[in-house]
Amino acid sequence: MVSWYFKEILLKLGVDEERIEIMSAKGGFSEDEFEGIRYLRFKDSVKKLRRGTVVFSQNDIVLGFPHIRRVVQLENGVQRVFKNKPFYVEEKIDGYNVRVVKVNDKILAITRGGFICPFTTERIDDFINVDFFKDYPNLILCGEMAGPESPYLVEGPPYVKEDIQFFLFDIQEKRTGKSLTVEERLKLAEEYGIPHVEVFGKYSIKQIKELHELVERLAEERREGIVMKSPDMKKVVKYVSPYSNINDIKIGSRLFFDLPYGYFMQRIKRLAFYLAEKRIKGEEFEEYAKALGIALLQPFVESIWDVANGEEIAETFIVRVKKIETAYKMVSHFERLGLNIHIEDIEELNNGYWRITFRRVYDDATKEIRELWNGHAFVD
Amino acid sequence: MVSWYFKEILLKLGVDEERIEIMSAKGGFSEDEFEGIRYLRFKDSVKKLRRGTVVFSQNDIVLGFPHIRRVVQLENGVQRVFKNKPFYVEEKIDGYNVRVVKVNDKILAITRGGFICPFTTERIDDFINVDFFKDYPNLILCGEMAGPESPYLVEGPPYVKEDIQFFLFDIQEKRTGKSLTVEERLKLAEEYGIPHVEVFGKYSIKQIKELHELVERLAEERREGIVMKSPDMKKVVKYVSPYSNINDIKIGSRLFFDLPYGYFMQRIKRLAFYLAEKRIKGEEFEEYAKALGIALLQPFVESIWDVANGEEIAETFIVRVKKIETAYKMVSHFERLGLNIHIEDIEELNNGYWRITFRRVYDDATKEIRELWNGHAFVD
Repeated sequence: MVSWYFKEILLKLGVDEERIEIMSAKGGFSEDEFEGIRYLRFKDSVKKLRRGTVVFSQNDIVLGFPHIRRVVQLENGVQRVFKNKPFYVEEKIDGYNVRVVKVNDKILAITRGGFICPFTTERIDDFINVDFFKDYPNLILCGEMAGPESPYLVEGPPYVKEDIQFFLFDIQEKRTGKSLTVEERLKLAEEYGIPHVEVFGKYSIKQIKELHELVERLAEERREGIVMKSPDMKKVVKYVSPYSNINDIKIGSRLFFDLPYGYFMQRIKRLAFYLAEKRIKGEEFEEYAKALGIALLQPFVESIWDVANGEEIAETFIVRVKKIETAYKMVSHFERLGLNIHIEDIEELNNGYWRITFRRVYDDATKEIRELWNGHAFVD
Repeated sequence: MVSWYFKEILLKLGVDEERIEIMSAKGGFSEDEFEGIRYLRFKDSVKKLRRGTVVFSQNDIVLGFPHIRRVVQLENGVQRVFKNKPFYVEEKIDGYNVRVVKVNDKILAITRGGFICPFTTERIDDFINVDFFKDYPNLILCGEMAGPESPYLVEGPPYVKEDIQFFLFDIQEKRTGKSLTVEERLKLAEEYGIPHVEVFGKYSIKQIKELHELVERLAEERREGIVMKSPDMKKVVKYVSPYSNINDIKIGSRLFFDLPYGYFMQRIKRLAFYLAEKRIKGEEFEEYAKALGIALLQPFVESIWDVANGEEIAETFIVRVKKIETAYKMVSHFERLGLNIHIEDIEELNNGYWRITFRRVYDDATKEIRELWNGHAFVD
């Protein structure tokens, strides 16, 4: 059951008692504490309080980050969503989503799922100018954390050469979740020197050729894709590059049995629509087909060989932290998420930071491959 | 609710009243009639009465055809299932499963789902010597119907050049579902001239090299795979060729949105285990990867182009029947299965038969592609 403290807040927000009880019974809430700050996390949506919402107090409410809609046919998608109106095109970066917010004089980084991330929170002043929150305590900086040394992903964008960086892409109000306009956001980012995702400019359906060329260039540069936004932020849609679809499959296929089928099938679908829209044929088509086949099979087959040789399916993550304690807090966080993850190595860097190496073992995927390799006969 | 007639039979079979009611409530039974013969069809399993079971009377009970277990690592699978004991290796043919049985002096062909197939039943004496049932009214001939002119599949094995054929692979007793031994079955097939799936001989784990070579040969000949059976039929497992996995994906990818994700992912899994077991690398590996990529993308992209050009996703089936009436019965049968299928063409052949062309339209797949092509923005 939700404690009286949060229950009062929910009631004031207009969530009725019955709804609170139903959500509690389904395990839709979790109450937690981070360095003395208590918070209620929403695992499911309740009315406008989206999954990932975090409630600290009556005034400190961080709504769950909204799902961005996707189009798979760029030209028709742009036409349908924006008509003839202009829209900003910004880079979609492959990282993890954080909402950075000030609560009780502490600056916290909240993950998409509504957890306070011990790693991102500890490092936050390395990534952004926190003076921003002195002037705007009521705003939330929404951004992507991306780089080769990330606690959640094994890869980052090609231009982040080491460690990890923050890239702003939205500023929202506490409680309402209302976004500032693109222009307001860009102005604040510049004023405070907050790193921002690359803005490719303003486009409209008339520049569809240039937009296609931009996607081509991003694909060549091994970048994920674009997010298109009406200046008032009321319409936001994403479109990913063919590079990203194939690369995601390559990263995922080593973990074939740990991922839902949809992970792979959605990306195959997006690639197929890209090939159809661009009317790609002949040799170029075959190149894409081969790249897809290799992405699906090569890491997967290698993982089968590894298990056949007695190894486990595992991934290694590296992060840099200020205090070793933060690494242990990350382990607790991962354990709470049900992951089998542990610290492999701790190394002191000469700037006083520590480099921590984590190893995540995929037990179910390992077991599944082992069983099948050992000749298990099954009904499918 | 089940009628009193079938209810009495079920009670005598030891299914208790409560179970019958629960099954009925869930829609687990359907009662039907075919040319004056009433039957109860099991959509779900009840005790030993497997899904696809058909009850005609106390003595005429045809159990659902059992699921054959699959291995994806041939050597270890053979070792684990058969130890050092010999087993028969028979061809696994890509067609549709029928159980042929005599009930009230009528010979009926029952599909895997427990429907009496009007087409197969009408044509049954073209496929098998029905004298068999004079001598063995208590036995069921289980076989695969396969060929280029099939009401359920668009392709057949390469060696069936026209029409469709029956291939025996099991003989079971009514009521118990008990299989004859392989030797008994082969003897009866020979005696009555009933066409049988190809028997490649007896193997044991010692001949694993030859078994691998057999699978290679079948793949080259564009054949589906093998079923391995202990002589007493107590252990039966299947293994498919890499050709079959890729070809199934090729056939399925045109219907991408009509098939469950598992259809594709299971076949990718089987192919990956084949490549891992055979330690296929380098150029040969790349050839498989390319073939997989093309199988996934080419028919799918073509289907997107078709829909973009205003066409529907559809398949065409051809069958030969003795009476046009049978074609109409097939349409009713398809409608009952919820398919959008209709007769496109009826042509009289010079042997008195009719060639019927059916067109099956995949409405949901067409609609899904049309929406995405038209730029629909969605949350995934």
